[in-house]
Amino acid sequence: MQRARSAEAKQQREQAILDAARELGAVRGIRQVTLTDIAEAVGMHKSALLRYFETREQIFLLLTADGWRDWSPSLRASLAALTRGEEATVEAIAGVIAESLASRPMFCDLLAQAPLNLERNVSIEAVREFKLVTLEEVTLLVASFQRLRPGLTEEQAVDLIATATSLAGALWQMATPGPQVEALYRSDPRLSHAIVAVGPRLTRVLTATIRGFTA
Amino acid sequence: MQRARSAEAKQQREQAILDAARELGAVRGIRQVTLTDIAEAVGMHKSALLRYFETREQIFLLLTADGWRDWSPSLRASLAALTRGEEATVEAIAGVIAESLASRPMFCDLLAQAPLNLERNVSIEAVREFKLVTLEEVTLLVASFQRLRPGLTEEQAVDLIATATSLAGALWQMATPGPQVEALYRSDPRLSHAIVAVGPRLTRVLTATIRGFTA
Repeated sequence: MQRARSAEAKQQREQAILDAARELGAVRGIRQVTLTDIAEAVGMHKSALLRYFETREQIFLLLTADGWRDWSPSLRASLAALTRGEEATVEAIAGVIAESLASRPMFCDLLAQAPLNLERNVSIEAVREFKLVTLEEVTLLVASFQRLRPGLTEEQAVDLIATATSLAGALWQMATPGPQVEALYRSDPRLSHAIVAVGPRLTRVLTATIRGFTA
Repeated sequence: MQRARSAEAKQQREQAILDAARELGAVRGIRQVTLTDIAEAVGMHKSALLRYFETREQIFLLLTADGWRDWSPSLRASLAALTRGEEATVEAIAGVIAESLASRPMFCDLLAQAPLNLERNVSIEAVREFKLVTLEEVTLLVASFQRLRPGLTEEQAVDLIATATSLAGALWQMATPGPQVEALYRSDPRLSHAIVAVGPRLTRVLTATIRGFTA
């Protein structure tokens, strides 16, 4: 009994830490959240927190895996809903993908941070677990895309997912440069091109990419 | 005379610092290079180096601007060369763009680092200078693409450049996860999908994107 209670308590504590990191990351952006910030938010000392997680990066890599498990089923449901009426247009498919990503700002942030920073300061086992989650979700998404567009090869569907997630990550970083740089972009007319709208650009590029793959 | 000699000496010193940072970045990857590393490589103390540059990030942002000034004319020359014979195919245009990026690994690294890290730890003036360089090169590249494909709108050409540079940055990070993670991908057959080849994937996606834009 003692043991089971302790395992449960441990799991609750882990969940509280992940929740605190998610909340801080959503408000400040991932880069601004330190291990000390997370420890403070759950009322623990940093050294105590490190009994639950390897590093700050492991916490955010787990949240990235959670992000895939949230995004992928939601996108698959939206794609399935598209086919209830007539055949889904390329624009509609691209719009659904773009919207599913643009409406998840912290997931976009994590998608860019994962290969640059998060996967690089964790154990090999943490990378393996993370990759197995993303590969499972990619496999399910490939099947969804192929149901809508049977002409799409597996390689093309994987390329499409990689394009959508990589671009969403990069565009989100460009679209949220911080208040000072944003003010600069708005004050200098030469820099108006630097203002990026994630959803519309993603929709345009994905429309072209799907059209090109299935032409 | 004293003043001119001093300005020249200052410029030489700045160039030596940039060259050292470029060399270290190319060997280790940007993330592994600290200000102390750069100072050591040029035989200066860190505090002395900070008389020439604001931050580590400013040094790498200047190298990113140099990267645009190197990549863009080279790509424009390759695009111009495509039209010497018959009309350039979509595959040929995409291949030339992908090759121009995949053959510049440090530029790919910098393209991903810039919006995430480099633009965020420098002065507003440093961001403005950097953006003006990239916007000038983007304008010249747009004209090159429109010469090859007159049906491409300015917005589509800008989207194409954003897709190529954002994807090159993200894919390069995925393709170079470090020796341990690379060994993991090769040892676990379930993870073979995680091995990314920048050039081929970029060629496939850009081919589809250009085809879709001009369909």
